[in-house]
Amino acid sequence: MNERILVSPADLMGDGVFETLHLRESGPWLLDQHLDRLARSAALLGLPPPPPVTPPAGQTGVMRIIYTRNLFHVGVSPIPDQVLRERRDGIRVLSAGLGVSAGRQPPWSLATAKSLSYASNFAARRWAARQGADDVIWTSIEGYALEAPTASIVWLAGEELGTVPWERAGILPGITAAHLLSLAPSVGLRPAPRMITLPELAEADAIWLASSVRGLAEVVTLDGTVRPRSPWTPRLLTLLGF
Amino acid sequence: MNERILVSPADLMGDGVFETLHLRESGPWLLDQHLDRLARSAALLGLPPPPPVTPPAGQTGVMRIIYTRNLFHVGVSPIPDQVLRERRDGIRVLSAGLGVSAGRQPPWSLATAKSLSYASNFAARRWAARQGADDVIWTSIEGYALEAPTASIVWLAGEELGTVPWERAGILPGITAAHLLSLAPSVGLRPAPRMITLPELAEADAIWLASSVRGLAEVVTLDGTVRPRSPWTPRLLTLLGF
Repeated sequence: MNERILVSPADLMGDGVFETLHLRESGPWLLDQHLDRLARSAALLGLPPPPPVTPPAGQTGVMRIIYTRNLFHVGVSPIPDQVLRERRDGIRVLSAGLGVSAGRQPPWSLATAKSLSYASNFAARRWAARQGADDVIWTSIEGYALEAPTASIVWLAGEELGTVPWERAGILPGITAAHLLSLAPSVGLRPAPRMITLPELAEADAIWLASSVRGLAEVVTLDGTVRPRSPWTPRLLTLLGF
Repeated sequence: MNERILVSPADLMGDGVFETLHLRESGPWLLDQHLDRLARSAALLGLPPPPPVTPPAGQTGVMRIIYTRNLFHVGVSPIPDQVLRERRDGIRVLSAGLGVSAGRQPPWSLATAKSLSYASNFAARRWAARQGADDVIWTSIEGYALEAPTASIVWLAGEELGTVPWERAGILPGITAAHLLSLAPSVGLRPAPRMITLPELAEADAIWLASSVRGLAEVVTLDGTVRPRSPWTPRLLTLLGF
């Protein structure tokens, strides 16, 4: 992200929406789903429907769409080495209470929108890094696992491939996770969106954080406890085209 | 805010801090307190200490300091008419649960930092506007009044001038409210920072939202109930130099 954009000070208040896509040789992966979510996020922030996007040609990497009250920006940057490393080697994850109650959000809640107000997401990951971890799983006051700062939670329990239902939990609808669950039957797994407590999650056969560019990052330690690598990680990554 | 600033896309993610000051003929009001809070907010976001500020000379209005990982910006804009009107005529306020537990914030919480991630603050005020109100008082899951999207709560109960203790409540430390409470004894009132439930607050003799540029905006309706105007509003505004 070495590009520079001319903005007004009001554009710096996090009062807009964005999407991050994996820009493949075949084009932006799951583009329609990301544009749908962008439009949904925009509506939640009281923004007009976003203008159409012309995918950048002849490039691969990270494609980011940024949309505020005064600005519509599409940029491409290389995939950070860390992202590739985490996809390959997995991640060390800490759980932490977010201090919110699942499903008790205020009427104007933006918890299901991908807003630009990302300071807390970055702060959560800095907190994890200070403790030698890579990422965080947020939990609700009731003890449910919710989501990660920049990813959805996916788990395997027997033949069930689970993820947290976004509407019930009041979290961002995860595009990669939803796509993966839709493909689950093709590899003999049963899609199972449901609420899950942290102790239940810790019992799962495998846990991943799912997002567009990282794809699936397997949780190799959870709160310091080492988890065996799952044979499903390479299979599911292949299924997603990574 | 017609100025334009050259930024990188990363600066648009709300990952910075800001301050808004009342720029008076005598200079920026309570400048040292705002710079202290800016530095405190910056530390909470893992930013280096902010550079020194040279106050703009020969201008009055709204002074805004914006500080991100790549940018330090000081701008001046006129005071919006609406702000002057709300200071004079008071405001219609709705209460609404924020879905958070007072004092149960996560370890990386930015609730006490003035971060640029303001989308929810704007969304809360748009929600109020859709219902014909001007502003919102946020309450915790336990029923405590916390703060407003861009202001602190101050109330008068007998001879007590109250405000919500920021550290205990996990809210932004209000500079205008703290300054007003420090001046309370000079007008025969007793400063009383304490937690207050919404029903208790509704019983107060007067309620104000306190912020740097609006000063004090008296709550003239709370959840639709009309409140008598307080003779203290002009006295306290004068005390604050408005």
